[in-house]
Amino acid sequence: MKIIRVSVTPIAFRDPPLLNASGIHEPFALRSIIEIESDTGYIGLGESYGDAPALAIQQQVAPQLIGLDPFQLNQLRAIVQTTVAAQKTTSLPGAELAPGSHASKAVSNAYSAFEVAFLDLQAHALNVPLVDLLGGAIRDRIPFSAYLFFKYAQHIDSPYKPDSWGEALSAQQIVAQARRMIESHGFKSIKLKAGALDPEHEVACIKALKEAFPGVPLRIDPNGNWSLATSVRMAQLLGDDLQYYEDPTPGLDGMAELHARTGLPLATNMVVTDFDEFRRSVALNSVQIVLADHHYWGGLRDTQVLAKMCDTFGLGVSMHSNSHLGISLMAMAHVAAAVPNLDYACDTHYPWQEPDEEVIKGGKVPIVDGCVTITRAPGLGLELDHDQLAKLHDQYLSCGIRQRDDVKQMQRYQPEWTSVKPRF
Amino acid sequence: MKIIRVSVTPIAFRDPPLLNASGIHEPFALRSIIEIESDTGYIGLGESYGDAPALAIQQQVAPQLIGLDPFQLNQLRAIVQTTVAAQKTTSLPGAELAPGSHASKAVSNAYSAFEVAFLDLQAHALNVPLVDLLGGAIRDRIPFSAYLFFKYAQHIDSPYKPDSWGEALSAQQIVAQARRMIESHGFKSIKLKAGALDPEHEVACIKALKEAFPGVPLRIDPNGNWSLATSVRMAQLLGDDLQYYEDPTPGLDGMAELHARTGLPLATNMVVTDFDEFRRSVALNSVQIVLADHHYWGGLRDTQVLAKMCDTFGLGVSMHSNSHLGISLMAMAHVAAAVPNLDYACDTHYPWQEPDEEVIKGGKVPIVDGCVTITRAPGLGLELDHDQLAKLHDQYLSCGIRQRDDVKQMQRYQPEWTSVKPRF
Repeated sequence: MKIIRVSVTPIAFRDPPLLNASGIHEPFALRSIIEIESDTGYIGLGESYGDAPALAIQQQVAPQLIGLDPFQLNQLRAIVQTTVAAQKTTSLPGAELAPGSHASKAVSNAYSAFEVAFLDLQAHALNVPLVDLLGGAIRDRIPFSAYLFFKYAQHIDSPYKPDSWGEALSAQQIVAQARRMIESHGFKSIKLKAGALDPEHEVACIKALKEAFPGVPLRIDPNGNWSLATSVRMAQLLGDDLQYYEDPTPGLDGMAELHARTGLPLATNMVVTDFDEFRRSVALNSVQIVLADHHYWGGLRDTQVLAKMCDTFGLGVSMHSNSHLGISLMAMAHVAAAVPNLDYACDTHYPWQEPDEEVIKGGKVPIVDGCVTITRAPGLGLELDHDQLAKLHDQYLSCGIRQRDDVKQMQRYQPEWTSVKPRF
Repeated sequence: MKIIRVSVTPIAFRDPPLLNASGIHEPFALRSIIEIESDTGYIGLGESYGDAPALAIQQQVAPQLIGLDPFQLNQLRAIVQTTVAAQKTTSLPGAELAPGSHASKAVSNAYSAFEVAFLDLQAHALNVPLVDLLGGAIRDRIPFSAYLFFKYAQHIDSPYKPDSWGEALSAQQIVAQARRMIESHGFKSIKLKAGALDPEHEVACIKALKEAFPGVPLRIDPNGNWSLATSVRMAQLLGDDLQYYEDPTPGLDGMAELHARTGLPLATNMVVTDFDEFRRSVALNSVQIVLADHHYWGGLRDTQVLAKMCDTFGLGVSMHSNSHLGISLMAMAHVAAAVPNLDYACDTHYPWQEPDEEVIKGGKVPIVDGCVTITRAPGLGLELDHDQLAKLHDQYLSCGIRQRDDVKQMQRYQPEWTSVKPRF
């Protein structure tokens, strides 16, 4: 089997004005959609970061894959390494919440983007679901959590009509957001993106969620925007309200100190984002749960390696998400299906994306009872909707955004806004 | 694809009177040969431990695999776990040099035995070499080392005519053994199995090898049979003669202390034999090189995980061997081909096995220029020779050995022999 065509298509889709530690989401989120066609007539799909530096590498790698056998993942890695080594890449501070867009992750990020498409092709050639190349499904229903955000009702300058979610700044509004999300999708756990408003207020929102949804596991994620002192203080307020405490404070040392002081289980997608940081975290006991993300951990196979390492070192496994569409969701679901020690429901931004902006045939992947179900269809079980792809590519061309920058976007609302961290 | 037939055939083949820390090899080595047939007409092959406890588990697992899809490795693992949990298994002291035969390794050992056959089947279904399911070959020629043993000329009671290697007890005889092995196979590095004779004599043999083969990397493996004091003393005699110092002294603590005192790179297949020991070794800095072995590390995929973990924690990777035939050799070669950080030539006992006792068609796999070459043939690239299998199975039935016991065998030569360790 040989690769005869590779396309990398940047797309943009509407994204609500969600608040976070860096600032606020821009009106459009960027992704790239990867199609790889084999001489046997199969198509493998991938979805990855659409920010300019990541996209540039993907576009440079793409033509080098023509003629390659999609089983040769080690050759893919070598091609990506050579391509990245020839570049100088830089990160913007506003992109720090998307670990895969960091310059230091360029190799694993680009490798991951294509690895999924390669595995999808392999699975199509075998007429088996992709999960079968990962050892087969331990579960076919993958639990996700309700991912709540503080948000404004509308983007500045109203680039399009407001989303249906409305403003969410008060505890009451956050509870309403949770209620709608749970009623729509049946989620069995809740994550609150924090680090955006006053910490006491954010903790009060957790308390309100606890009261409104008794017994539902809760998580808070300030994205490293709380000082160690604030994190300790909030831990005292939170008591045992949380399933885990996600990235309250920056750095491996800060997290280690916080765990030593509070004993709370700390989760991360910020201080353990590659194998080197994993090693350093083990030495410091910085975190107890690693949020995997195949987009920057080196693909589905290396996500399995990460999970085995977590098992070895007594760490829990959960899953991180950025704004994404259905190809990423199904790739996450397939690897999650094969990870024995998937200890927690995965994160996903997916409910925030609009139903008319999915690139896969049939529209959005359903999330029912909080779960995505993987089927026995070959590969990821997805087909690309080329009309939708063209539409979202046009939107990419016209939206003007080329690299995520939540700081700069917030400066449009508050000109004095800076990227200082921790803010609280 | 469904499994319609599974056979587990114990075999015995002649093994020379090789000396080691426990005692001496018995006249026959035991293995099991696994064949798994799919409803699509493919055959997957595996080779594993043939000792009674390992064999019993394999034979109990085998019928439970009928109807299973060979992609369902996670289901295989679950079946093996359930089967092992229902058993009480014990280890004999004489079996301690074969880590896969330890009771504590029963799950990973049995899983590994079938995993290779499952992957072989998968690869046959795809018409690709097995290595392609592991990411594709980074190298197609896999280096092995010359594996020298002190030995007697003949087994006690002469169960069959003496092997052609003759006695090897003196430094001169060891150099002659190395010369023959290198001339026959082109090995580029040398390992001396030690822990059998006086340590000073064994070190003198290393010195003789160094003089006879200048520049050739040398290793010595006393199998944990030297006390810490002896290991330090021998380290002083050895200076920088060694590529690595393999398992001189027992235990993670002993190895850590030895490394701290000498700074020498320590390799192991005795103190880091599973992921839990890996974790403990990292904390202690016990070893610098892990000798992988898919037969007890959980198969080819988990051997890849181990290699990635070694990369993460700055450890080197090499490969361990027990007495084995060509199916094991090719499985070792396929995974070694896909491991980027295979830092050293692998161990193999293969040259010690007689050419008329191979179970694969075409006879023994060639080792040329010290390397095994993997081809583009599907799967492991091997077919079983059923006449040979039947012959070696008959030999199993008649030889009377059911579980390796190098201690008991040595007691036939020296009735006062005990399994005390470290002996020196």
